Amino acid sequence: MTDIDNFKRAEVLTQALPYIQKYYNKIVVVKYGGNAMLNEDLKRQVMDDIILLGLIGVKVVVVHGGGPEISEVLGKFGKESVFIDGLRVTDRESAEIVQMVLAGKVNKNLVNLLQTKGGNAIGICGIDGRLIEAKRRDEVHGFVGEITRVNVKPIIDLLQNGYIPVVSTVGCDKEGNIYNINADTAAAYIAGEMKAERLMTLTDIAGVLRDVSDPSSLIKFMNVKEAKEMIRNGAVSGGMIPKIQCCIDAIELGVKRVTIIDGRVPHSLLIEMLTDEGAGTMIAANDE
Amino acid sequence: MTDIDNFKRAEVLTQALPYIQKYYNKIVVVKYGGNAMLNEDLKRQVMDDIILLGLIGVKVVVVHGGGPEISEVLGKFGKESVFIDGLRVTDRESAEIVQMVLAGKVNKNLVNLLQTKGGNAIGICGIDGRLIEAKRRDEVHGFVGEITRVNVKPIIDLLQNGYIPVVSTVGCDKEGNIYNINADTAAAYIAGEMKAERLMTLTDIAGVLRDVSDPSSLIKFMNVKEAKEMIRNGAVSGGMIPKIQCCIDAIELGVKRVTIIDGRVPHSLLIEMLTDEGAGTMIAANDE
Amino acid sequence: MTDIDNFKRAEVLTQALPYIQKYYNKIVVVKYGGNAMLNEDLKRQVMDDIILLGLIGVKVVVVHGGGPEISEVLGKFGKESVFIDGLRVTDRESAEIVQMVLAGKVNKNLVNLLQTKGGNAIGICGIDGRLIEAKRRDEVHGFVGEITRVNVKPIIDLLQNGYIPVVSTVGCDKEGNIYNINADTAAAYIAGEMKAERLMTLTDIAGVLRDVSDPSSLIKFMNVKEAKEMIRNGAVSGGMIPKIQCCIDAIELGVKRVTIIDGRVPHSLLIEMLTDEGAGTMIAANDE
Amino acid sequence: MTDIDNFKRAEVLTQALPYIQKYYNKIVVVKYGGNAMLNEDLKRQVMDDIILLGLIGVKVVVVHGGGPEISEVLGKFGKESVFIDGLRVTDRESAEIVQMVLAGKVNKNLVNLLQTKGGNAIGICGIDGRLIEAKRRDEVHGFVGEITRVNVKPIIDLLQNGYIPVVSTVGCDKEGNIYNINADTAAAYIAGEMKAERLMTLTDIAGVLRDVSDPSSLIKFMNVKEAKEMIRNGAVSGGMIPKIQCCIDAIELGVKRVTIIDGRVPHSLLIEMLTDEGAGTMIAANDE
Amino acid sequence: MTDIDNFKRAEVLTQALPYIQKYYNKIVVVKYGGNAMLNEDLKRQVMDDIILLGLIGVKVVVVHGGGPEISEVLGKFGKESVFIDGLRVTDRESAEIVQMVLAGKVNKNLVNLLQTKGGNAIGICGIDGRLIEAKRRDEVHGFVGEITRVNVKPIIDLLQNGYIPVVSTVGCDKEGNIYNINADTAAAYIAGEMKAERLMTLTDIAGVLRDVSDPSSLIKFMNVKEAKEMIRNGAVSGGMIPKIQCCIDAIELGVKRVTIIDGRVPHSLLIEMLTDEGAGTMIAANDE
Amino acid sequence: MTDIDNFKRAEVLTQALPYIQKYYNKIVVVKYGGNAMLNEDLKRQVMDDIILLGLIGVKVVVVHGGGPEISEVLGKFGKESVFIDGLRVTDRESAEIVQMVLAGKVNKNLVNLLQTKGGNAIGICGIDGRLIEAKRRDEVHGFVGEITRVNVKPIIDLLQNGYIPVVSTVGCDKEGNIYNINADTAAAYIAGEMKAERLMTLTDIAGVLRDVSDPSSLIKFMNVKEAKEMIRNGAVSGGMIPKIQCCIDAIELGVKRVTIIDGRVPHSLLIEMLTDEGAGTMIAANDE
Repeated sequence: MTDIDNFKRAEVLTQALPYIQKYYNKIVVVKYGGNAMLNEDLKRQVMDDIILLGLIGVKVVVVHGGGPEISEVLGKFGKESVFIDGLRVTDRESAEIVQMVLAGKVNKNLVNLLQTKGGNAIGICGIDGRLIEAKRRDEVHGFVGEITRVNVKPIIDLLQNGYIPVVSTVGCDKEGNIYNINADTAAAYIAGEMKAERLMTLTDIAGVLRDVSDPSSLIKFMNVKEAKEMIRNGAVSGGMIPKIQCCIDAIELGVKRVTIIDGRVPHSLLIEMLTDEGAGTMIAANDE
Repeated sequence: MTDIDNFKRAEVLTQALPYIQKYYNKIVVVKYGGNAMLNEDLKRQVMDDIILLGLIGVKVVVVHGGGPEISEVLGKFGKESVFIDGLRVTDRESAEIVQMVLAGKVNKNLVNLLQTKGGNAIGICGIDGRLIEAKRRDEVHGFVGEITRVNVKPIIDLLQNGYIPVVSTVGCDKEGNIYNINADTAAAYIAGEMKAERLMTLTDIAGVLRDVSDPSSLIKFMNVKEAKEMIRNGAVSGGMIPKIQCCIDAIELGVKRVTIIDGRVPHSLLIEMLTDEGAGTMIAANDE
Repeated sequence: MTDIDNFKRAEVLTQALPYIQKYYNKIVVVKYGGNAMLNEDLKRQVMDDIILLGLIGVKVVVVHGGGPEISEVLGKFGKESVFIDGLRVTDRESAEIVQMVLAGKVNKNLVNLLQTKGGNAIGICGIDGRLIEAKRRDEVHGFVGEITRVNVKPIIDLLQNGYIPVVSTVGCDKEGNIYNINADTAAAYIAGEMKAERLMTLTDIAGVLRDVSDPSSLIKFMNVKEAKEMIRNGAVSGGMIPKIQCCIDAIELGVKRVTIIDGRVPHSLLIEMLTDEGAGTMIAANDE
Repeated sequence: MTDIDNFKRAEVLTQALPYIQKYYNKIVVVKYGGNAMLNEDLKRQVMDDIILLGLIGVKVVVVHGGGPEISEVLGKFGKESVFIDGLRVTDRESAEIVQMVLAGKVNKNLVNLLQTKGGNAIGICGIDGRLIEAKRRDEVHGFVGEITRVNVKPIIDLLQNGYIPVVSTVGCDKEGNIYNINADTAAAYIAGEMKAERLMTLTDIAGVLRDVSDPSSLIKFMNVKEAKEMIRNGAVSGGMIPKIQCCIDAIELGVKRVTIIDGRVPHSLLIEMLTDEGAGTMIAANDE
Repeated sequence: MTDIDNFKRAEVLTQALPYIQKYYNKIVVVKYGGNAMLNEDLKRQVMDDIILLGLIGVKVVVVHGGGPEISEVLGKFGKESVFIDGLRVTDRESAEIVQMVLAGKVNKNLVNLLQTKGGNAIGICGIDGRLIEAKRRDEVHGFVGEITRVNVKPIIDLLQNGYIPVVSTVGCDKEGNIYNINADTAAAYIAGEMKAERLMTLTDIAGVLRDVSDPSSLIKFMNVKEAKEMIRNGAVSGGMIPKIQCCIDAIELGVKRVTIIDGRVPHSLLIEMLTDEGAGTMIAANDE
Repeated sequence: MTDIDNFKRAEVLTQALPYIQKYYNKIVVVKYGGNAMLNEDLKRQVMDDIILLGLIGVKVVVVHGGGPEISEVLGKFGKESVFIDGLRVTDRESAEIVQMVLAGKVNKNLVNLLQTKGGNAIGICGIDGRLIEAKRRDEVHGFVGEITRVNVKPIIDLLQNGYIPVVSTVGCDKEGNIYNINADTAAAYIAGEMKAERLMTLTDIAGVLRDVSDPSSLIKFMNVKEAKEMIRNGAVSGGMIPKIQCCIDAIELGVKRVTIIDGRVPHSLLIEMLTDEGAGTMIAANDE
């Protein structure tokens, strides 16, 4: 960083001032997972960004999914991954393996990373304090859960005690069953229940593109109505549909703004929140 | 239970009154793990006991170890368990698997069980909030950790917010290394740091026997001096030595009383705490 | 108690668990008085029950009446007890004697008993903090009061400071007059104002009987509508009518459930609250 | 009051300003009882003074004794008052009658009077919250108690909740015995334990006189040393000795200043505290 | 004061009791300024009155204007005072001088005076914590402000921390402009926003007179409707119109009672609040 | 700022992370005044820096002096500035003018500037809450004060209520006299009393130079011993002596580190605190 002198550094800091003021004491849920989590360098930068947001007064909640670790461990246990309609069919044993990997490996590794960077984090999963209650989604997918209730008190308690909460999206029910829960959906429900200022979904794409083959066709802003229309008229397809649907759900559950940002861009979280340049596609209520 | 009428039930409850008064608002650390954890029925009874203790005003902290699950998962990963001096040699990958199994499987299963019984629990491990800081014990055992510091604030925060804290004994250091920590030792440090009224170590033995082949030779009470003498003169041997050493450590770290109780006896926790009959071997300071 | 071993004791305790969870942090008003108060052994058991309920997290409020002590002291003062329509005619001097006996003798004796048992109680009367405001009921009964307002702040303050409040039902008005207040009525008003979970009226009868000569005709449950019907059609008579009317009032003032229990049965309070067997007649809202 | 115009009234108020500032948020214990309590008009003025002191920020605690009511009620019960060495010999039944009269009659009448004047008071006795623990003074006086411990938490709780605590000096022990406690002594212990700024003992005399037959020989100020000397050399005698001894005890227990004031002088409490003129005899530590 | 003996002093204090009870913990805004502020002796008495009100539990807020000091300093700076429609035309430099004199001289002198009398005061102006936001009133008067918003949090914070807030009525806007604000208007807005019990406007007149030449024609009470009618029908004129309009505004903004009192009468504040005699003209809502 | 892209901006922010963590929740007193205050652009940058420090969790207290405004206003009042030993001789009227200019003009202008930038500030002076108590320094300088006591409770209260305290260094005594207080000294006392992490003195020089004619001879770090030696051996002279003496005093009063920084360098506050490059001369305790 020899190319930026200290005066410019100070200027950069003060230019972030209005953004810092804007998000002071506001709740921001960061959904992190999947391919966006693979690159170790990027992961460290995301952790830095989260700690910095915490220090400048943002109440950051990290909600994470899994990724290749799950398939890997399932493999070790001889569990083959079968997908129906894009969802992993999950028997009881697999659900327990998913729980183990998410809550014991991915979650604690994120907490560990945050702490080595000076953060103060505590990792919990949807079982703790009955944070995510769920039921079976349908007959064919086994223990793939549909959220029936989120109880965000544990998250609020952790925030008030000064910790960065890191949440694994495992669901539970009163009988003690464990459910595999889609992390985007869980993040939307948690952010909605907390009336979060923003939900930031870190992905490994640039955002929503008008023309999927043309990166310059990035849509920077949509309201919910436009987003619904894009799904309806087929302008988006494949895995993008549930992602956008989650954004719509989050807004309708009470989040102010939802952004799909490109986790492959270094410090995209900070760029999105603390500069005048967006870093992906923002979706907001119709009246914005 | 048709053999106990309601009057006798009420009498039993009121006879517990002086014990309930005695432990009201006191901290009791329950070390749970190993073979004492294998029997599912007993496990449920232990959870019932813990919830009941919580409801009658005891501040219960659960510290757990692992057990057969760890070896099983290590096996799936092709990790053979090598023991030197009774301690598992733990390479980095194994330490991470131990973390995964303890924090993601054993811990969350206990939390889940507590919650299905009506408890309100949150599970954390030694990484969360940097609860257990450790360093390498020696050169040969790899990531087997020796505790350098315990920071019980996360546990206190959880207790104050009304949760039963359930703690996996994984250690961490500032560089992000993960350590396998002996659960008895961790429980002793945590209980000592919290100046717990009691540390209850649930085991699969009857307690300390004068004559290991004679169950009727159970020692009901020892002070620290006597306990040290027993180790010194060889009156105890094998795996019992570190167990008793942990009890001695706990007392010297500030715990009032430590009890090794027989986890195979149904409701031994309640019997030990709420009746006039002990359920194992109690070790206390010399001046008691 | 040699006939119940410790395992069974522990089982009894854990079987109480769901009931303990149910009443945790709930307000329960215990109306105690009259003949149910005569037997010293029973009185001690009632005190034990109240302390136990307090320790397991129930917010117990004791409201008591007088009984033979009042007549005795009135006799010493040469006051003859004249009853019109079942209510003692009370001149000013008699009202002051009732105050003295209730607030100075019965109340403090209960407090004293609770404390010798390890409870932490404070006794107040309806004058303290203007807890029970009243006016003359009618022209003929003198200082027999009708409640105009209850101000439960003193009770709430005592509960929050960790005391068991014990309340004598003496009423006052802004001019400084003192009123003799029916204890059942006062308990109903206080429980109603506090939105108590339960009002337990300890009496010296088995409960409401369909056939007063047949103890096996005990009515275990009535809703308010049924209770009103019983009064209307003469199914209950005599002193039972105002008792049931008080229950109805309490429900209508906001109490969830009211129970007339047999104070002559040892530990009937615990049996009613912590076992699956009732111990009298419960009255609840119509929709239960 | 036509003779004082409003300007002068305002001047009187502002001239009280430095005294009000001096006692703001300070604890003042007022011992009230005996003959000073007989005149109803004076009693009302004392209540007015207490309420006013409360409103200007003084933390007033009222400790009262009994008086003629006790003898009267004892008489009704056929209990003859026998005095040995100036102390009433008190059998168990008499102790209970004393309790009843003090806690049920005198106490509640004071509370009632305070409330009709706009105060917010709660009356307790030494049994409540085990406020005054005692043991037998000697073999001959029966249940005349010597204080073994005062536990002022109930008084502090009441003050913090905004009430004027009114305390009857009945003592208790762990076995449930009741003791008749000298009110001056109890006031001294309570004031000492609370490190009160002042203890004001309202009596029916002008204060300590050098020459008991000459009202103009009033001693306005003594330090503890001088007070002790007066007892030693016989300068005071009779009932004045224990009164002065109580003052000495109070100072030695931690009270800053103790004053024996003339309760027969209207508003002597206010005159003593809010004007530059004393109203009796003040005793303070030697270094004042 | 040799003419009032201590008994009468005490009586005066207790006769203030009902008034003290009435205003206990209530917010009273005292508008002080103009000619009422000129006489140093009167000023000291007003400060005494304010401190006394604070000590007896009234939450006093002082809002002050300027007076001759402003013209004097403007003169030193060569600023001639031009008035249009009774309002000083204020250029930017003059507004800054007004700010300096009000916030730096008048305000701090009042604070200083309060503190030398034993009060604990903090002086702020409408800039601090953006207490008074304003905009230009019109085109001709320059930086004469019209209030757009009052943010009373700083005042509430000071009251809660135990200070007497003293407020200079300088206004600000988001661009950093400074406005000269009419102190009567600012006091009305602040008192209204705080839902004050009373707004006391200290003036140098006797109050509202029916016949301006006849002091005995003082109107002691008006409701808002009557006050509006007096303005409408010309019964009041000149500088009295805006004064009364401010009173009407204050009532409509939420103040319970507004009084114009004669600051030339010594202790008129205390006389108005703590005696049965008024000291000026009170205006209240129509339904009083 | 087109020359720094958003990635670099984010990197700058995250590189400030360790410094932000270091000063989180720490008290930093910024002394601002004199010539460092003249340039309006620099002043805005200093305000930006202060707000940013506040938002990232630093507890900033601003202590300011005056400057040319004081002489200017004194001039308008015909007060000639006479200096003896470098200190302005201050008669009573001049002291009052200094108070007016500091507390009414300089202070409120800083507050106003902070607020237009989004800060939330409240300005007070040493009179408010008796923050700075002083006495005459000597016979010749009139109302030039020497600090006798600082009472930082008002500052702490403001910090806890979320405001940036801005303090004018006017002193007071119990008689109501006003004193002109050296701002460097006042800042040292305030920072010392608050056990501040850092005292940052913004000046219009580069720092302490070994050779006053050679800017490259800047001394970056001294401990107290070295600083004292420099004064003793004449290595520093003139106005630098009292500046360094103030730094020494501050350290000895309890401040951890004191820095004289160059207020003419844009954002020197941020550069000093949030980068690895110092911006002046730091003085610390001998053991650092």
